[in-house]
Amino acid sequence: MINKDSLTHHISAQFNAELEEIRSHLLAMGGLVEKQVTDAVNALVDADSGLAQQVREVDAQINQMERDIDEECVRILARRQPAASDLRLIISISKSVIDLERIGDEATKIAKRAIELCEDGQAPRGYVEIRHIGEQVRKMVQEALDAFARFDADLALSVAQYDKIVDREYKSALRELATYMMEDPRSISRVLSVIWALRSLERIGDHARNIAELVIYLVRGTDVRHTGLAKQGPAAAADDKA
Amino acid sequence: MINKDSLTHHISAQFNAELEEIRSHLLAMGGLVEKQVTDAVNALVDADSGLAQQVREVDAQINQMERDIDEECVRILARRQPAASDLRLIISISKSVIDLERIGDEATKIAKRAIELCEDGQAPRGYVEIRHIGEQVRKMVQEALDAFARFDADLALSVAQYDKIVDREYKSALRELATYMMEDPRSISRVLSVIWALRSLERIGDHARNIAELVIYLVRGTDVRHTGLAKQGPAAAADDKA
Repeated sequence: MINKDSLTHHISAQFNAELEEIRSHLLAMGGLVEKQVTDAVNALVDADSGLAQQVREVDAQINQMERDIDEECVRILARRQPAASDLRLIISISKSVIDLERIGDEATKIAKRAIELCEDGQAPRGYVEIRHIGEQVRKMVQEALDAFARFDADLALSVAQYDKIVDREYKSALRELATYMMEDPRSISRVLSVIWALRSLERIGDHARNIAELVIYLVRGTDVRHTGLAKQGPAAAADDKA
Repeated sequence: MINKDSLTHHISAQFNAELEEIRSHLLAMGGLVEKQVTDAVNALVDADSGLAQQVREVDAQINQMERDIDEECVRILARRQPAASDLRLIISISKSVIDLERIGDEATKIAKRAIELCEDGQAPRGYVEIRHIGEQVRKMVQEALDAFARFDADLALSVAQYDKIVDREYKSALRELATYMMEDPRSISRVLSVIWALRSLERIGDHARNIAELVIYLVRGTDVRHTGLAKQGPAAAADDKA
């Protein structure tokens, strides 16, 4: 197990400073990505095409942040040749930025759907679900980042487990929208736009889960991907069977 | 620029052997993933639920390969502290396996759709498109891996550019299927299954593109993500404007 203290015991104060800096860059990128998710969902449900346009423009900034953090990671690997928990930290950061960037991409896709739906005018079905699932996955992103900031494997575990609930609600929303399309075929193209936005939200949940799993790897040194979360704790076991 | 020769000039023969081994593991994983894509598409268009079931079972093997290669990467980073092109190689491998694993996930999703559609019985619209786009993205995966095997940045660039063609055909197929749903609302749930499979194929193309971009980074030492491919060569410029 590592904790925040173990990160502050390097021989080189400079190296400490570098690790702290890169971690703060990751969290700053995460904060911006989380805001993109919120803005994209609001743009869609409030039919605010100006906000949607803004989300699309901010995406370039997120892509730049990914490149910058990536370069920092490579520089640290090459110069500092970190071992053990420092190495895990760099690896976790370098993988987390991939997921953050893709969350940004999904937010941009939602913004595009928002613009389509604004042009269309009518408020279709599915907005309640968009708002609800949107809030759930935004919270997953936020908590995955909090878990990263505090090296909190328990919080990370609960984020990873929560993804199942989101998947279930997503599937139930899809079934409802499919039924609605059958009842009112003229709504199909509008409802499809809503379905694509929902799918993006479900993906955002997947990426937040990936980040949470990286935090668990970082803190505990074990790779929990694909292995089932049940082995991680008694609280997990109950949910994993669901 | 690096080439295969520059990889064979290490002081430690053992280190060479380790780099070659991890690269061959990546390519073996890639070969299996490519086969999963082929099998999943065939299972769907041939309504072969046995083959679909097999795809779902093989996925666990791919997940295990990802974990194993990942561990090898961490071990090499910790022990060998590679620099320059060796470091880029390890980073590219460690990121490529993420994309390969997700291609495997998408193949599994297609297999699930295949099983649904088998149970349904009727052959819906969209199978021609599934077969066509399926073949395109399978080839992208294959060529991205070939580019990795031969450190061929030109081939990687053409794979990355090809993704635009796939996206265009995907969108055109979607429009057609939406129209079909409007004409025959009873087909909606079947057609949605086909749409999900198409979407998985489009994602597979995205992941193949990611791998191709990692090959360009590996060979040329430049990060081409998000920057537009036009800067990479004259042949690219024409396509990038399209």
